[in-house]
This record gives sequence, structure tokens and C-alpha cells, in this order.
Amino acid sequence: MITFYDAPISGNTYKVRLLLGQLAIPHRTVRLDIAGGEVRKPEYRKVNPFGRVPFIAEEEGFSLAESNAILLYLARGSPLLPGDPRSQALIQQWMFFEQNQVELSIGLPRVWRKFGIEQPPSVLEHYRPRAVSALKTLERHLEQRQWFVGEAYSVADIAMFAYTQMAPEAGHDLAQFPAIAAWIRRVQAQPGWFPLE
Amino acid sequence: MITFYDAPISGNTYKVRLLLGQLAIPHRTVRLDIAGGEVRKPEYRKVNPFGRVPFIAEEEGFSLAESNAILLYLARGSPLLPGDPRSQALIQQWMFFEQNQVELSIGLPRVWRKFGIEQPPSVLEHYRPRAVSALKTLERHLEQRQWFVGEAYSVADIAMFAYTQMAPEAGHDLAQFPAIAAWIRRVQAQPGWFPLE
Repeated sequence: MITFYDAPISGNTYKVRLLLGQLAIPHRTVRLDIAGGEVRKPEYRKVNPFGRVPFIAEEEGFSLAESNAILLYLARGSPLLPGDPRSQALIQQWMFFEQNQVELSIGLPRVWRKFGIEQPPSVLEHYRPRAVSALKTLERHLEQRQWFVGEAYSVADIAMFAYTQMAPEAGHDLAQFPAIAAWIRRVQAQPGWFPLE
Repeated sequence: MITFYDAPISGNTYKVRLLLGQLAIPHRTVRLDIAGGEVRKPEYRKVNPFGRVPFIAEEEGFSLAESNAILLYLARGSPLLPGDPRSQALIQQWMFFEQNQVELSIGLPRVWRKFGIEQPPSVLEHYRPRAVSALKTLERHLEQRQWFVGEAYSVADIAMFAYTQMAPEAGHDLAQFPAIAAWIRRVQAQPGWFPLE
């Protein structure tokens, strides 16, 4: 049995929650309170030295951090992760792009807005064009296709969905990105989909 | 034959250059001038819609962006990428951490310093604690071990080395991180290692 260390609000934990649900993987959930600092406490640091969520632990002593690494690990052998090396490479390509170009540039401004955390205007101005540039890359890619890799919904879509769909909460108007908006609706229509709480 | 789109200065291209050399993978190199804007030109955008480097293209029409995805793809079946799923998952864990927590927080301030690109102090102050926090995570991990995953040098070490070794260029003193400094020396002692130009 897998233990899944989860937390509300986080887009990264939502990815894993969605995958566990859609693949019906048996697990037990430990919910932590990020805002209350629970992930930074020494008790949790003993379980997960990264002091972050999501995190999974197997009974045999194996544990894993980083949302996209967890998706790749849990989805192996399933329809959400094709077995051929080229498809896997393209899925990983989009997952690294997500962590480098999307997650911070949308996720940080979204959290600051949501919780009224003040930031210097220059920091917001630093992230805004980075997010727009990333959204333009996604838009160009999705103009030509239904899913990020190949002809089917995969862990690449789950990884990209979590923060891309938050773009409006970070101040971006998705009406300017119709291919992204259409892809978001396709993800939402997948069996077992549920929204980020 | 693989075509490798390379560029000087970039830590991400250095990762791929190092891997191609250490695994002696036959390839031809196309060198682009990032500072001169060559990667943003329409000719290159036709080859690589991401408009970034590194990028690889195979003769059969398959191509791949994102440095860490390229490392994982090219190293499959080699001693630099163990075959078991748990080792691969841990390698990917550190690679996602690198792209999310290390590459930007060290790489951006390093480029701004190197080329005298002025930034608002608040942007520099935003990245500094993020880099320190990432370096502390690496230090704690390396205090207990020689390599990032398992008992041998792997693509996780190549991925992490590129930007971590630049920390001094971004204003961080590695004397405060002795385990990282010792690991850097171990990477530098690997057969076929060469410095970032």
C-alpha cells in the first residue's frame, strides 16, 4: 500500500491525487496543512527530507518526491504512460518544461494573489512575461493536436493541466489562448476527472 | 546520426555535451549564438518550435527538447541510467528538482551578473533565498552519500552539476557547502569530464 502525503491548494499534489483516482491505485492519504507550516516541521522532515508535498512512501521503504517523478513512477505500465522510449521522452520533455516554465510563473503569482501576499511589482513583472511566453508555446502546440503527446490523454496532460488551468487566477485571460481553453475542456471531460479543490 | 543543437555559455547545453562525450555517442553539432538571438530566429523555430537549446534531432524525424529529457533519452541502456524503475524514479526526482529549484535560482542571477544585465534588487532578493534553500537540500543529501542516486555517477549527477557548480558565479560561497564542494570534485574526476566553456 502506498502512503500519499497530500495537501489542499497545491497544484502539484492535485496532479498525483488525480492520477491515483484515474488509475484507481490503492493508497492511504495523509493530509498536511501547508499554510500552517506542517510540511516544514521536524516530524515531517524525518519522513520527507525535502519538506514538501506531494510525496509517496511504499511499505518496502521506497519513497519519492517531485510531482512529475511520482506521476511517471505510478503510471508505468498503464495507458497513461506509453511504453515506447520516444513517447516517454516527449512526455518527459513537456514535464520538464512544466516545472521550469509553467509551474513557477503561474503558480507563484496565483498563490500570492489568493492569499494576499504582497510582492514587489518588479517581481510580478518578472514572472508575467515568462508565463505569457510559456502559454504561447502551449497554445502553438495545441493548435495542431488534441493531447500533448501522441493521440491520447497521458501523464503529460495531467502534469500540464494543474497549473495551466490556474492561469486566470494568476491574471491571464485564457480567451486569448483558445487552443489551451479547448484542451482544458477535453481534460475535464476525461473519466474520473475532478477539479482542484 | 543525431544532430545536436548546442550553444556556448548555457548550462543546459553543457549537460548534453558532457553526456555525448562521456558515452561517446556519434553526433554532429550545430552551434548557435544565443546572445546574438540565433535561437529566436524563424529558421531555427522551424527546426525547434521551443526556440531554445539544447535540442536533438534524429534522422528519422524524431526530435527532443529540454536538457534533462534529452539526458534520459540518450542515456537509456547505458551505465549512466540504471534500468530499475525505482532508481530511474529517483533520478527523475532530482532532475525535476533541478529544473524547478536550482536552474533558475542560480542560472538567472549568474547570467545577469556575467553579462551585466541590471535587475531590480527585489528580483535578485527573490531568487537568493530560493537558491540557498536548494543548496541546503543538496548539501544535506550529499553529506550521506557520494552520488545523487545509488552508488554510481549517473545522469542525475550530470543534470545537477551544470548549475550547482555555477553557484559562485551567482554569488554563493560553496565553502559553506562542503559536501557539495566534495561532490563537484568527484564529478570533475570522472573519465571524460571537461569544464563548461
